[in-house]
Amino acid sequence: MKKLDTGLSSVEGFSFSAVQAGIRYENRLDFSLIYSSKPCNASGMFTTNRVFAAPVKICKERIGNAIHGILVNSTNANACTGENGVRTAEMLLSEAENLTKSPAASFLNASTGIIGRQLPGEKMKHALPDLVKGLSAANGDIIPRAIMTTDTKPKSAAFSFTTSKGEFAVAGTAKGSGMIAPNMATLLTFVITSAPVAKKNLDEIFRRVVEKTYNAITIDGDMSTNDTAIVLSPQSGENLSSAEDLAAFEEALNAVCTDLSYQLVRDAEGGTKCVTVKVHGAKSASDAKLCAKSISQSLLVKTAFFGNDPNWGRIACAAGYSGADFKMEEIDVSIEGIALLEAGQPFETDIKTLEAVMKRPEYTIDVTIGKGGHSFTFLTSDISYDYVKINAEYST
Amino acid sequence: MKKLDTGLSSVEGFSFSAVQAGIRYENRLDFSLIYSSKPCNASGMFTTNRVFAAPVKICKERIGNAIHGILVNSTNANACTGENGVRTAEMLLSEAENLTKSPAASFLNASTGIIGRQLPGEKMKHALPDLVKGLSAANGDIIPRAIMTTDTKPKSAAFSFTTSKGEFAVAGTAKGSGMIAPNMATLLTFVITSAPVAKKNLDEIFRRVVEKTYNAITIDGDMSTNDTAIVLSPQSGENLSSAEDLAAFEEALNAVCTDLSYQLVRDAEGGTKCVTVKVHGAKSASDAKLCAKSISQSLLVKTAFFGNDPNWGRIACAAGYSGADFKMEEIDVSIEGIALLEAGQPFETDIKTLEAVMKRPEYTIDVTIGKGGHSFTFLTSDISYDYVKINAEYST
Repeated sequence: MKKLDTGLSSVEGFSFSAVQAGIRYENRLDFSLIYSSKPCNASGMFTTNRVFAAPVKICKERIGNAIHGILVNSTNANACTGENGVRTAEMLLSEAENLTKSPAASFLNASTGIIGRQLPGEKMKHALPDLVKGLSAANGDIIPRAIMTTDTKPKSAAFSFTTSKGEFAVAGTAKGSGMIAPNMATLLTFVITSAPVAKKNLDEIFRRVVEKTYNAITIDGDMSTNDTAIVLSPQSGENLSSAEDLAAFEEALNAVCTDLSYQLVRDAEGGTKCVTVKVHGAKSASDAKLCAKSISQSLLVKTAFFGNDPNWGRIACAAGYSGADFKMEEIDVSIEGIALLEAGQPFETDIKTLEAVMKRPEYTIDVTIGKGGHSFTFLTSDISYDYVKINAEYST
Repeated sequence: MKKLDTGLSSVEGFSFSAVQAGIRYENRLDFSLIYSSKPCNASGMFTTNRVFAAPVKICKERIGNAIHGILVNSTNANACTGENGVRTAEMLLSEAENLTKSPAASFLNASTGIIGRQLPGEKMKHALPDLVKGLSAANGDIIPRAIMTTDTKPKSAAFSFTTSKGEFAVAGTAKGSGMIAPNMATLLTFVITSAPVAKKNLDEIFRRVVEKTYNAITIDGDMSTNDTAIVLSPQSGENLSSAEDLAAFEEALNAVCTDLSYQLVRDAEGGTKCVTVKVHGAKSASDAKLCAKSISQSLLVKTAFFGNDPNWGRIACAAGYSGADFKMEEIDVSIEGIALLEAGQPFETDIKTLEAVMKRPEYTIDVTIGKGGHSFTFLTSDISYDYVKINAEYST
């Protein structure tokens, strides 16, 4: 496996385009297309929010089809827009399918941005011919830029890997920033590969990878109406089929999604830290995840991270209310290997050393809650003044 | 039922005292005692955190005893202090029981403050004679002041009520500020009454009242290691027994706890708003509570409150991921009676009017999620720059 610095363009068979359609703002890339002339198998994981956007509804209906493209817009979520929102999205997809001479219902759709406003359908329809004309295999870097909302940096990652059937690439892009919570398919992320993988294998592998990556990061604990994770793999009579080949694909897919997860947390809204929270010694896998998630989501823990405050009491406290089964006499907490709490009681540590560690932009917290065999790792950000500022003023 | 402005001193049979014991800071009231020469029935609700403080352990063991006092300290939580922490607390309780000539194990205990430091037992022991000497029935107002941590205002409430056995009073005090979350017995709250109520009735009534008051408010969603709610009622052969008398007591107890709940949310750490979130039309009581809690705890909703931003999308979104069963086509959201979302779609509203409403320090959000018969009301605060500031810098 090898890391590539050529982003989405690393993957043969796909082309990319984005335009300024003026959806909510002028002079902003807001409408983009990922296209494959070959039909693809698609797997997707979507928000489990009962209030979900029109594109989520459409994707769920189409995810079993042979897919040729993903049409994406930023600045408007097309959520809480009722039947009208679904009709507008379907009209745009149908136009895009026609312009690329693709079969009906072969395009997926994703939107991000403000909730509760109808898409400007006619304006977007008029932008489609230019969008399709712009498609180019070399244009991979435009997609990460066009899908950003409050992200400060475009995000992409690519890896190549070797199988018995030759060398392939996997590449992905994501947009996140706020609202990234576990138990959902993160905000928007699109992964493409040149490796042909059967739909059934693709589904299984993608679910496993998302569970350990996008579903193991948290910024503010909210879950959006639009969360969408999609992977596309070209249909072929020559699918990867041996366990070794599928494992090589899974490893590369995991590397792409892990890399994007770090980028998402590093670019958290108003965030100044990227903290890895590792829970060990849990009695079950679900206890390990519950505990890691509870610590990672605690507002008191996250504000302490922001303040460079080694307040292990808040970490122990969040572990204690997580629902994970453990005895308080068995909990150990350490930061970058420096013990803070051992067997439920404070460990005398030099506060100056600790504070110096906590001033780093990235560090790891280890929490052991017993002698069980289960671990789980979460990534989290801090909560800063700027987080409050960005989110107090978002829609107005 | 009548509201009284005489605080804890409204309740005959109890006396109060507080001193500056220098537990963590000098010149600060930090050690206090609520005392009854008559034995009392006590009911308590305590944190369900697996990491719980020494006083919680002691209270749970003693709550069935005939109780004469509650010994409380602020500035040190006596949590994550192991066996040593329990021994120190038991020593102090035993000394206080001796000084007041009360039976062994007749005093309850509560602590609040920093986690993970041993109490200065000898220093506190030396403060006990003065603490006991200071006991006075007129001294009720000193308790709310002595139990504060980051609270900016002392909190108490008192009501009188009439029964077939005469007139009685109920009064309470609470300290909160941050970390107040549902599904626990809030931070520290002590309620006393002159009405004699059998232990079994007291338990049932207190549980019902706490569920609707302290368990229906949220500030940052964390749950502390020390949360303790206690009510004391004098033992007597003449307990309130008729349904009407018990209902009158429950009404007054509910009034005290509701009043204190409002005071807690109004004094939320860094909070500038007190928002009532009412969920209607739920299919079950638990759905109504889940939904109200999810909206009230959402960091995005709370930062929007701070920014006076009528971002109903975030409210609908938090309802959607709450776990409550509803269809997005059935959700209505309004603020102070102004419709924002009807049947899952935006309702055209004058933004200026809305923003004016949201600038008020207190308002109500109504969320209807169907045609079911269940409702639940939560109280919540906003999350401000100051919340982050207070909590980034607490322990250092």
